[in-house]
Amino acid sequence: MTGSATGNWGRWGDDDQAGALNLVTPEVTLRAAGLVREGRTLSLAQPLGPSSPTPGHRPRPARFMNRDAGDYALGARTPGGFKFAEDTVQFPSHSGTHVDALSHAWAGEHLYNGHPESGTRSTRGARRCGAESLVPVVTRGILVDLVTAAGGPLPRQTPVGTAGLERGIAEAGVTPEPGDAVLIRTGWWEAHASDGNYFDGEPGITGEAAEWLAARDVALVGADNYAVEQQTDEPGFPAHLVLLHRHGVPLIENLDLSTLAAALIDSGRSTFMLSFAPLPLVGSTGSPVTPVAVL
Amino acid sequence: MTGSATGNWGRWGDDDQAGALNLVTPEVTLRAAGLVREGRTLSLAQPLGPSSPTPGHRPRPARFMNRDAGDYALGARTPGGFKFAEDTVQFPSHSGTHVDALSHAWAGEHLYNGHPESGTRSTRGARRCGAESLVPVVTRGILVDLVTAAGGPLPRQTPVGTAGLERGIAEAGVTPEPGDAVLIRTGWWEAHASDGNYFDGEPGITGEAAEWLAARDVALVGADNYAVEQQTDEPGFPAHLVLLHRHGVPLIENLDLSTLAAALIDSGRSTFMLSFAPLPLVGSTGSPVTPVAVL
Amino acid sequence: MTGSATGNWGRWGDDDQAGALNLVTPEVTLRAAGLVREGRTLSLAQPLGPSSPTPGHRPRPARFMNRDAGDYALGARTPGGFKFAEDTVQFPSHSGTHVDALSHAWAGEHLYNGHPESGTRSTRGARRCGAESLVPVVTRGILVDLVTAAGGPLPRQTPVGTAGLERGIAEAGVTPEPGDAVLIRTGWWEAHASDGNYFDGEPGITGEAAEWLAARDVALVGADNYAVEQQTDEPGFPAHLVLLHRHGVPLIENLDLSTLAAALIDSGRSTFMLSFAPLPLVGSTGSPVTPVAVL
Amino acid sequence: MTGSATGNWGRWGDDDQAGALNLVTPEVTLRAAGLVREGRTLSLAQPLGPSSPTPGHRPRPARFMNRDAGDYALGARTPGGFKFAEDTVQFPSHSGTHVDALSHAWAGEHLYNGHPESGTRSTRGARRCGAESLVPVVTRGILVDLVTAAGGPLPRQTPVGTAGLERGIAEAGVTPEPGDAVLIRTGWWEAHASDGNYFDGEPGITGEAAEWLAARDVALVGADNYAVEQQTDEPGFPAHLVLLHRHGVPLIENLDLSTLAAALIDSGRSTFMLSFAPLPLVGSTGSPVTPVAVL
Repeated sequence: MTGSATGNWGRWGDDDQAGALNLVTPEVTLRAAGLVREGRTLSLAQPLGPSSPTPGHRPRPARFMNRDAGDYALGARTPGGFKFAEDTVQFPSHSGTHVDALSHAWAGEHLYNGHPESGTRSTRGARRCGAESLVPVVTRGILVDLVTAAGGPLPRQTPVGTAGLERGIAEAGVTPEPGDAVLIRTGWWEAHASDGNYFDGEPGITGEAAEWLAARDVALVGADNYAVEQQTDEPGFPAHLVLLHRHGVPLIENLDLSTLAAALIDSGRSTFMLSFAPLPLVGSTGSPVTPVAVL
Repeated sequence: MTGSATGNWGRWGDDDQAGALNLVTPEVTLRAAGLVREGRTLSLAQPLGPSSPTPGHRPRPARFMNRDAGDYALGARTPGGFKFAEDTVQFPSHSGTHVDALSHAWAGEHLYNGHPESGTRSTRGARRCGAESLVPVVTRGILVDLVTAAGGPLPRQTPVGTAGLERGIAEAGVTPEPGDAVLIRTGWWEAHASDGNYFDGEPGITGEAAEWLAARDVALVGADNYAVEQQTDEPGFPAHLVLLHRHGVPLIENLDLSTLAAALIDSGRSTFMLSFAPLPLVGSTGSPVTPVAVL
Repeated sequence: MTGSATGNWGRWGDDDQAGALNLVTPEVTLRAAGLVREGRTLSLAQPLGPSSPTPGHRPRPARFMNRDAGDYALGARTPGGFKFAEDTVQFPSHSGTHVDALSHAWAGEHLYNGHPESGTRSTRGARRCGAESLVPVVTRGILVDLVTAAGGPLPRQTPVGTAGLERGIAEAGVTPEPGDAVLIRTGWWEAHASDGNYFDGEPGITGEAAEWLAARDVALVGADNYAVEQQTDEPGFPAHLVLLHRHGVPLIENLDLSTLAAALIDSGRSTFMLSFAPLPLVGSTGSPVTPVAVL
Repeated sequence: MTGSATGNWGRWGDDDQAGALNLVTPEVTLRAAGLVREGRTLSLAQPLGPSSPTPGHRPRPARFMNRDAGDYALGARTPGGFKFAEDTVQFPSHSGTHVDALSHAWAGEHLYNGHPESGTRSTRGARRCGAESLVPVVTRGILVDLVTAAGGPLPRQTPVGTAGLERGIAEAGVTPEPGDAVLIRTGWWEAHASDGNYFDGEPGITGEAAEWLAARDVALVGADNYAVEQQTDEPGFPAHLVLLHRHGVPLIENLDLSTLAAALIDSGRSTFMLSFAPLPLVGSTGSPVTPVAVL
């Protein structure tokens, strides 16, 4: 059914809002747990806060202290000696390391699986395919380490087409199977985390490479850049439409894959158990997430 | 060293900000992965959004749409047919299911491990022991199901003392070991999720029960209420001081443990692999989190 | 032209976004300045902050401190002895005492004056008739004091129809003239500022009374309730459509008219110079405002 | 008493929080109303919105639509044909054209008039001298037009000392009297509104010039730059301490004085009626404001 004009629409029922996460069956999870050999746990998330790179069209992430130590220095009461600090956070749901919910991108008048776009409005947000529809999954992760292969970060606007992706996966020495999470290291975050150019022309997969991944029934695709896919001077997001819209494959963006890459090289492996647990943000079009690799 | 006046201060070095999460060694994680037998994955998180219960002294969680389907209905451009929706979220970092970072509660002039409270200020938030210091862990989870034992949710202000906790753990048929995550089901969320009384006088552990847990070197303590510990008419948070402050044990609050409880009863077990991955919110005193149980 | 089906549309040119504020000509302002006889200045605004009454469908007003005295108590630097405190505010633009911009309410597919509704979208807000289009005006204010006339606050859902309004104006002893601001004291704020019932069934003008006001070419209509007009158990805002939409008359809501009423009674008058200066909030559908009466 | 070490502290009672605004007596307001000769009303405010220049250490102003026309295009109900749009605004209280409340700046342990700094904390904001303490005033405004005098905007970091200020006022042909508002046009906003350099090294008054103004008992001082006073490479705000702290004179920052300057030149005058009406933002350290000049 994958590869057809309508991708995975209808594959898991007309009401389905979890998309390719359905491919992570108990068997897939069991197999993934078997990949834990060292017990080493790694975060794949970038820090999230006021200093996170943010494109100009979005509000900057902010953190406001509602109570802090200064209040006690000035005489706030401490019942039983107890002091506490609290804060409020605010950020675009597509800030930092996050997953795109299936309501994030579409074409025509329907979201993934035929859910009407008309449910995505101001007050309630996305009534269908919001972040709260994304179930947590534990599955096999595959790192496609294009940086090590290329000897350095991919240059600006580099396309990763089907051939390049296949080559990267061949070097990883694995064959993607249904339910896998494929994480692609382009080196973009490592190269541009703090030089102000992070949101300008990232390298990434092409629409064709996205089709290739969807045809293998992967459950998740992620990358260490802001949109997973190549950005050229022409606006367009074909891989988003292939993966999110037609196949219901959530995208994990703004990953930091450098530590994982080093650990996998150390261990001489390219797969790992991946735990992925988005926040159930009701009606949001994405969720920050800390994906965890366990080796 | 645990049980001493200063708890775990200094135990993992003077700079340590991860506290009892250090107890989750690779061996502990390896053992936890071995608990995956069915491959069943369960979220322990409450939904997070504008309808989440919020105490009056905190801002309500909010979600603002920065782009939605209505914009396209009104003529927004769709390069290559591409449409997208985006939102901004705002919430107290102690909203919904969240972990208290080690900067959240203290007594005297120092946070956990002797970090000076003076680093917790308005602009930068918590410079020490912020949420970004909490490493993700995969460990063994133990459910202490006081609801099933009691035949229903615990009444308002019920104390769970050492004896009650030991009894609950005995019924679970396990012995807590270093690095375990102990999750306590009081039934408070199930009973008061939507009746407006959720923030009024929860049942929970006492300070003594907290000492008992700390003495067993658990890495995490969580509950299905808003503060883990019993709230009486007298303000006070002794268990916070024992666990967060003296022993560096992060607390997971506002869990939803009902689905997990049912699944464990089904499977005839009380332990599971727990994946815990807070967001690296720089300088925040807590982080929303979706803890995941894998059976 | 007023009273016609299309009200004031086209009256001040096809591009006009200021509506009836155009009626405040220099002559009107000059005449208003002549009403200053005592030099007494009164604010007509309610306090705006986290404690302001807020209906459940809107975020609560919030104030977050970005720098406060506690930071200095904890050691923040003070170049040349200088200390400062700063905060960030957040509130619905229709909180507290505010003016409805002409983009706030409409029927059909066009805002006031035929501006297409399609300009009011997520990202840019109201491209036409936003709060920044409301010019400040200084004009004659007339207080219609229904509370003094009735001997107390009007009861819940009391309609103020044409007859009632005419009677109130007759008691004020004035004839509304083009460019005037008519402020109607119902007593609703005084009665329900803090009892939790403020947003439930206010008394106010009817659609017919709104027509009567529009026919007199008033520039502004305000009241000490949340919507100027009577709210019954049937949802509907006919006076909003008459005044904002058809005639371009901005509405000032949530006024506090009690101090003004007392001062006017003291002085034996019912008119005053009113200074009205909304914030130029780009693309907002309203603006908080502190209307000022000078006697 | 002005000019003494403690400036205006105690001058209007120990509880006073309105400072030099007390100098705007009814007589002063009456005289100001007499300045209205043409009935021409001018806003002195810069637009406030997401595009407003914002220094990097503050959150960007934001506007979020809670309801917009797109919701109706997608099928939202329209009882009686009624449609509405609403938004939420968020901005630092020192954004755009604003007034510094008397809690904004101080030295030592006390705010203006001896109010303890310890009242300025995270949760409640400024308990003393918050923006809600600033009473609205109508007074005489004097434009000191240094741009016309100099033939163009003042260069970066230009000091306006006592001599320069006296010269500017002499050119205006007026003598400041108690209760006046003195507005200083440096040209900084006109020159740098959109080139990204607005927050870098503004010209402005010196501490000595501030003393000169305070000694004349002015009620308000404003300028078309971000801090009223000269900013050099050395951090420091001596004029803030003289005016806000010692004399209780609120500062109006980020004015746009270009239109006013042109109008005054047209009319051959340099004084006008100024209406100043901050929002009663409870506990805030400043308030956005639209000062209005009436000629």
